[in-house]
Amino acid sequence: MVKGLVSSGQLEFINGGMCMHDEAATHYVDMIDQTTLGHRFIEREFGRTPRIGWQIDPFGHSAVQAYLLSAQVGFDALFFSRIDYQDMAKRKNDKTLEIIWRGSQSLGSSADIFTGVLPNGYEPPRGFYFEVNDDAHIVQDDINLFDYNVEERVNDFVEAAMAQANITRTNHIMWTMGTDFKYQYATTWFRQLDKLIHYVNMDGRVNALYSTPSIYVDAKHASNESWPLKTEDFFPYADREGQYWTGYFTSRPALKGYVRTLSAYYLAARQLEFLRGRKSLGLTTDALADALAIAQHHDAVTGTEQQHVANDYVKRLSIGYSEAEKLVASALGCLSESSSGGDCQNPSAKFEQCPLLNISYCPPSEVHISQGTSLVILVYNPLGWKRDDVIRIPVTSESVIVRDSEGRDIESQLVPVSNVSLGIRNFYVKAYLGMSPSATPKFWLVFPVSVAPLGFTTYFVVSSTDQSGYSAVVSDEYTSQGSENSPIEVGQGNLKLTFSEGKLSHYMNTRSLVNQSIQQSYGYYTGDEWSYQGSGAYVFLPDSMHHVQSTDQVGPIPIDDKTGKEVVTQITTNINNNKTFHTDSNGRDFIRRIRDYRSDWDLEVNQPISGNYYPINLGIFMEDNSTEMSVLVDRPVGGSSVLDGQLELMLHRRLLRDDGKGVAEALNEMVYLEYEHAGLTIQGKFYLRIDPSGDGAKWRRSIGQEMYSPLLLAFSKENEVEWTKSHVPIFTAMDPSYSLPDNVAIVTLEELEDGSVILRLAHLYELGEDKDFSVMTKVYLRKLFPRRKISKVKEMNLSANQERSEMEKKRLLWKIESSSSATVQQMRGGPIEPFNLVVELGPMEIRTFVITFSYTTIHTVIDPCIGKPC
Amino acid sequence: MVKGLVSSGQLEFINGGMCMHDEAATHYVDMIDQTTLGHRFIEREFGRTPRIGWQIDPFGHSAVQAYLLSAQVGFDALFFSRIDYQDMAKRKNDKTLEIIWRGSQSLGSSADIFTGVLPNGYEPPRGFYFEVNDDAHIVQDDINLFDYNVEERVNDFVEAAMAQANITRTNHIMWTMGTDFKYQYATTWFRQLDKLIHYVNMDGRVNALYSTPSIYVDAKHASNESWPLKTEDFFPYADREGQYWTGYFTSRPALKGYVRTLSAYYLAARQLEFLRGRKSLGLTTDALADALAIAQHHDAVTGTEQQHVANDYVKRLSIGYSEAEKLVASALGCLSESSSGGDCQNPSAKFEQCPLLNISYCPPSEVHISQGTSLVILVYNPLGWKRDDVIRIPVTSESVIVRDSEGRDIESQLVPVSNVSLGIRNFYVKAYLGMSPSATPKFWLVFPVSVAPLGFTTYFVVSSTDQSGYSAVVSDEYTSQGSENSPIEVGQGNLKLTFSEGKLSHYMNTRSLVNQSIQQSYGYYTGDEWSYQGSGAYVFLPDSMHHVQSTDQVGPIPIDDKTGKEVVTQITTNINNNKTFHTDSNGRDFIRRIRDYRSDWDLEVNQPISGNYYPINLGIFMEDNSTEMSVLVDRPVGGSSVLDGQLELMLHRRLLRDDGKGVAEALNEMVYLEYEHAGLTIQGKFYLRIDPSGDGAKWRRSIGQEMYSPLLLAFSKENEVEWTKSHVPIFTAMDPSYSLPDNVAIVTLEELEDGSVILRLAHLYELGEDKDFSVMTKVYLRKLFPRRKISKVKEMNLSANQERSEMEKKRLLWKIESSSSATVQQMRGGPIEPFNLVVELGPMEIRTFVITFSYTTIHTVIDPCIGKPC
Repeated sequence: MVKGLVSSGQLEFINGGMCMHDEAATHYVDMIDQTTLGHRFIEREFGRTPRIGWQIDPFGHSAVQAYLLSAQVGFDALFFSRIDYQDMAKRKNDKTLEIIWRGSQSLGSSADIFTGVLPNGYEPPRGFYFEVNDDAHIVQDDINLFDYNVEERVNDFVEAAMAQANITRTNHIMWTMGTDFKYQYATTWFRQLDKLIHYVNMDGRVNALYSTPSIYVDAKHASNESWPLKTEDFFPYADREGQYWTGYFTSRPALKGYVRTLSAYYLAARQLEFLRGRKSLGLTTDALADALAIAQHHDAVTGTEQQHVANDYVKRLSIGYSEAEKLVASALGCLSESSSGGDCQNPSAKFEQCPLLNISYCPPSEVHISQGTSLVILVYNPLGWKRDDVIRIPVTSESVIVRDSEGRDIESQLVPVSNVSLGIRNFYVKAYLGMSPSATPKFWLVFPVSVAPLGFTTYFVVSSTDQSGYSAVVSDEYTSQGSENSPIEVGQGNLKLTFSEGKLSHYMNTRSLVNQSIQQSYGYYTGDEWSYQGSGAYVFLPDSMHHVQSTDQVGPIPIDDKTGKEVVTQITTNINNNKTFHTDSNGRDFIRRIRDYRSDWDLEVNQPISGNYYPINLGIFMEDNSTEMSVLVDRPVGGSSVLDGQLELMLHRRLLRDDGKGVAEALNEMVYLEYEHAGLTIQGKFYLRIDPSGDGAKWRRSIGQEMYSPLLLAFSKENEVEWTKSHVPIFTAMDPSYSLPDNVAIVTLEELEDGSVILRLAHLYELGEDKDFSVMTKVYLRKLFPRRKISKVKEMNLSANQERSEMEKKRLLWKIESSSSATVQQMRGGPIEPFNLVVELGPMEIRTFVITFSYTTIHTVIDPCIGKPC
Repeated sequence: MVKGLVSSGQLEFINGGMCMHDEAATHYVDMIDQTTLGHRFIEREFGRTPRIGWQIDPFGHSAVQAYLLSAQVGFDALFFSRIDYQDMAKRKNDKTLEIIWRGSQSLGSSADIFTGVLPNGYEPPRGFYFEVNDDAHIVQDDINLFDYNVEERVNDFVEAAMAQANITRTNHIMWTMGTDFKYQYATTWFRQLDKLIHYVNMDGRVNALYSTPSIYVDAKHASNESWPLKTEDFFPYADREGQYWTGYFTSRPALKGYVRTLSAYYLAARQLEFLRGRKSLGLTTDALADALAIAQHHDAVTGTEQQHVANDYVKRLSIGYSEAEKLVASALGCLSESSSGGDCQNPSAKFEQCPLLNISYCPPSEVHISQGTSLVILVYNPLGWKRDDVIRIPVTSESVIVRDSEGRDIESQLVPVSNVSLGIRNFYVKAYLGMSPSATPKFWLVFPVSVAPLGFTTYFVVSSTDQSGYSAVVSDEYTSQGSENSPIEVGQGNLKLTFSEGKLSHYMNTRSLVNQSIQQSYGYYTGDEWSYQGSGAYVFLPDSMHHVQSTDQVGPIPIDDKTGKEVVTQITTNINNNKTFHTDSNGRDFIRRIRDYRSDWDLEVNQPISGNYYPINLGIFMEDNSTEMSVLVDRPVGGSSVLDGQLELMLHRRLLRDDGKGVAEALNEMVYLEYEHAGLTIQGKFYLRIDPSGDGAKWRRSIGQEMYSPLLLAFSKENEVEWTKSHVPIFTAMDPSYSLPDNVAIVTLEELEDGSVILRLAHLYELGEDKDFSVMTKVYLRKLFPRRKISKVKEMNLSANQERSEMEKKRLLWKIESSSSATVQQMRGGPIEPFNLVVELGPMEIRTFVITFSYTTIHTVIDPCIGKPC
């Protein structure tokens, strides 16, 4: 039946992802993945490619949504409804609800999208709701009945149509005849719509028809009208005076962190699924794909769902992770087993992983390392570059030696695990695993690692009591926090950090010559308890700010005073940023923000804090003529520069009231043990860097990529010598001589059911962002897949449901009205040559390919020069 | 589709009237009419006769419902749910929810009915609601989903079934899988019920099936169980402590009065429709039949609907009346026209009627009677007896003579119309007709009339200024109300009434030797404003009683003090009635009531006023060894004997709070004019009589019948002599020598579409009620229809959807458990003999016939002895 309706045009898929994703708390890779999953399903099942973006409910709209997830997937238009109420009023007045949105400075007009802002939310006109229990007047056309009302209802209809026509260009308008929770019994609607259409057309003043957004868009396009140009984005969103929906940028930071962690794990797991061979594994990443896809929903990762719904999302994510974890263990087992040549059903090494390493819990590393055995640590690097990093794992013994795969000792340190960390570890392990940890780690064992692109390196931890070698050094502990008069200085190399009274007070880099006085502090906002409206899952509505002493964890946020709190950190410098700062759009482009200012209208400022908050997925930075300061984040948060020289991030929120926007529950996250409960604690990371002005982009892009895709650790236990005999200690999937350029990342590497592969490559820099890297760059596909024969490369649209050439041919072109739209310089890669198979990428370009290989047995080649000086 | 479902047994009609009628504020004639209308429709359309009475929602249950509207229509069982909470608790404990109910002392076991009290209202078990928006757990049988719950839901089901089985005899129980406002989208229910039945039967502990009440009843009957006997009725109803639903006995007295008035009008109009010939009229009583039928609903005549719903009922009644009024005028025109012989398309006389005579408004009688013309008044008597009565009409002149059809002057009086009456008249005419009356009547013209059974007499009012004759006498007016020391005595004949300070103080009948000191007073109840629960449309919850001076109208009830009021009249004597009084059941049987006592359980008294209120449709009486006092009412009211010697009637209610039982609106009836509004005023009548003990029944039954069926007046204007030349002034449909016995009434005389006639005859006395009239009586059908040839007489069940013999053959017989059920003497008429066509009726018997006539032109014969001494 569905196929019949689709084929007759009565049912049309729009948007077509697995969900209507959020645009503030989502990472562009997750947005692409979930859209691809939906689009390919629709293509496979119905042979259709959606033409319309339909983001009617998300609470603000991102540039990435416009230029990447709309234009680059081949949509002809994008519709939504929630924009700032001041913006909405002006657009109604100016007839600028329908526009051409140019979301990317780098891609310019090649990624323009026709965009319609629905003037009435996604609601029917008032009085035209026909759900089972609605009390709208049905169309009574039986003249014998008392409630006969055909003329009245036709007049209502025409009046509502004219009201909308008066704020709309061209003589077409569109009504969304439904809203949340409707069509539970569709007949109640269609019976009335049939009658309305019949009688309204008989009346003749307007012509009404069952339509779809694509029919509407075609009619708009056929009008040959010119449309205003819009750049940047639609953040932040206020639905009425003072009510900025900027709280959800941070709401449920644990859920947001889990989604981000699994997003990266999913990316790595798909690489390993491909490297090992999808078909032979018997395990898939499909459950994780599904769970991650729906977690991008605008009431999922946003934190704006009720607690039991959040629990359900997390449960699905956890199940998806468990399946992927087995796949990863099995793939690493096979890839590391010498005898299998990468192809095995049942690898001998049973790798364990540590998803709770964030709370210092890692059972396989907390074991007693006895004589003759060693802890085997396999470190996988999902990036396309060779990578040097430092890892830390909890251990129970202070007598350990770390060795690399050549048997050489590695310098390592033992950092005591603090009592605070142990407290959190014990509480959360009990709460979430239902058991107490069997061991208590004394130390973090910290050591440097080096791993090839798309490859792994193996390390061994052995006991120093039965072997000689370069034992791990136990760190000194200082109990002083430093005082104003005797601060503590940290850093033996170029970078020196000074702490005073437990807080960072100075930042000096002797190499870059940065020398900046700095203060990092914590505080919290509280709302006006007496106001009818306060902060909630969506809304951030602060009344006053309170400063507190530094803590090394955020939470449990105390509520003994019956007051909800929103915890922030502020980093204060003397950088003169003149109201200006930059935040990323879904982890990709940086957009300039100016305090108390909007480029589209004359802003009436009534909330100087929350009205200047923006979503942050990658980072935030500010600069003056000499200096720029960047902060990168490990999960989505809200942030701003509320004062010149200062950056602010909201870290956690615990609230006692609902904000009346739909959750109907206070955002008060709790953790329950049998006889105890507590507010949820969050442990996270942000990275801070001060550079000479203009030098920050390299750090933000490369460290940002490493933060998004951390090294993947897998643990086993075996005698070091035995292991080395039967295993491949070092591996890379790429040509050992090859590394991706510094400005390119592999966003997707995924084997499809037919054995072909989706490869998605992303240029990481914007036009003009960096003098070295904001240039056209190249990727050599043959070096990416040295062990396979590429038989076919098809370039696809972003969501891989059609060939790019088809998409370009079909897409509608729109006229822009104003002369202000000077042609922007575009730098985009040319078509891929079948002979050399080199992919060119211009700044911010993402290109998607489906690659078919001639069949080749996967075969591991060890290059002795990878992972060590050679 | 419906016919298919009916024929497969998936859909079964139960109850089958036009509505689920109320049982407290309904008259038995209306109950029969609405049931007949529905039953005959179902029989005609589907060939089915409903087997089950289904009164699940009405707020108390009447004896008439049991023995007449259930047993006598041929039902095998009756189900309902609302009984006193104390009664319910005891029945659950005793397993006496299912009983044999013997509602009639007179008919005894011949009118027993198997009765089931549903233990859980008409609700599904808790947790088994599956409406679109319900949050019950659906049966999730997809084992892959998180909410899989088959075992859990099966356990819930079995647990709920066992809980009900524990209070039920036999191993069958019935669940009502729905309730108010459900099945708006039936699929949501059936999908779950299908699954529940499937999995519960697979489990095997209980066996579940889609059933109907008749399948359930057959299973109960097959069990061969014996059941407890129950007599009397189920009034009053309290759903919890102190919350007696006895307010609705009086709620909306204007609506109740209108229904009662139109009930009688409908009875008379059907007689005239028949006498004139249904087919030739081109007008029908069908709209009135429909409107009256649905007005019997338990949220219609009860007064427990919202105001706009009450308005809708009244609008339908008014439309029905207007159509019937034209039919009546046309029929009377034809029947009175000499030349037509009763058969005419367009009678020359245009009769007008005065539905607003109750507010002194009658335009045809308020005309100036000029020389040579006269006001022609045709008086129709719908009773089967010759009737002498007094009528009163408003006139504008004081110079009038009343003459009978022989030209003889009739004694008449002119009673001044009071200013209070004129005020009401003007306000209500403006409010409801949207215009001011064009004339102002000075007097009520009052004169005696005499009319043959099922016949009419014509009277003429002429001007005394141009004709000589016995002019109407203008009454003297007394302004004194009488005082304690100098009371006023009224009555020149046997009856003398004494008034002191405006109130009745003494009652003396020199013929019956009754000599009774008496006090009639008014007062009102108010509730406890601070209680969470108060009086409302359903509930009567008094806190204190306030006495007031007599008024001659009830309303507008003042609410300046923000307090709702319930107005009562109390009639106080020194009759020693020892807590005992009698109220009728739907205007038929009288049931003995004992204050603060219930025969079925040991009553815990917590509301000594409202817990002793009972519904009154015909009357209430009390007695001691010497005296009995009766009060008859013109519409349903609530009443009681709260103190010995006293009877109390609730006349009107104006309340400011909702009682939370479902109306969701305060019962505060208002009348609106353009710049004015006021609380609704009620004008009504009650009749009071004091008799020697044992003598009251004759008066109650005969005057009760006259109150129910008043004379019908029609007005025209023509020269008296001219009229007499061309018209039949006196008419009876019956054999002029015949009158029905004093103990029989024609309840229905209605021509069907095929020309046959429904005749329904009712014995008016109970067994033992009156020494003369509580006997077997006879009706001679040939004398009832002297001008037609009766070709066939079929005796039917009460609702005339099957022959009585078939009904008797099919009906289930039930075993009564206790030996206390001594066989009650029954006196019922025997089969009708085809030769003599005489109908026998035992006490309280109602018999229903469909009579077929050989075609006969209707022909009017004037008997000179009817309507005058001869």
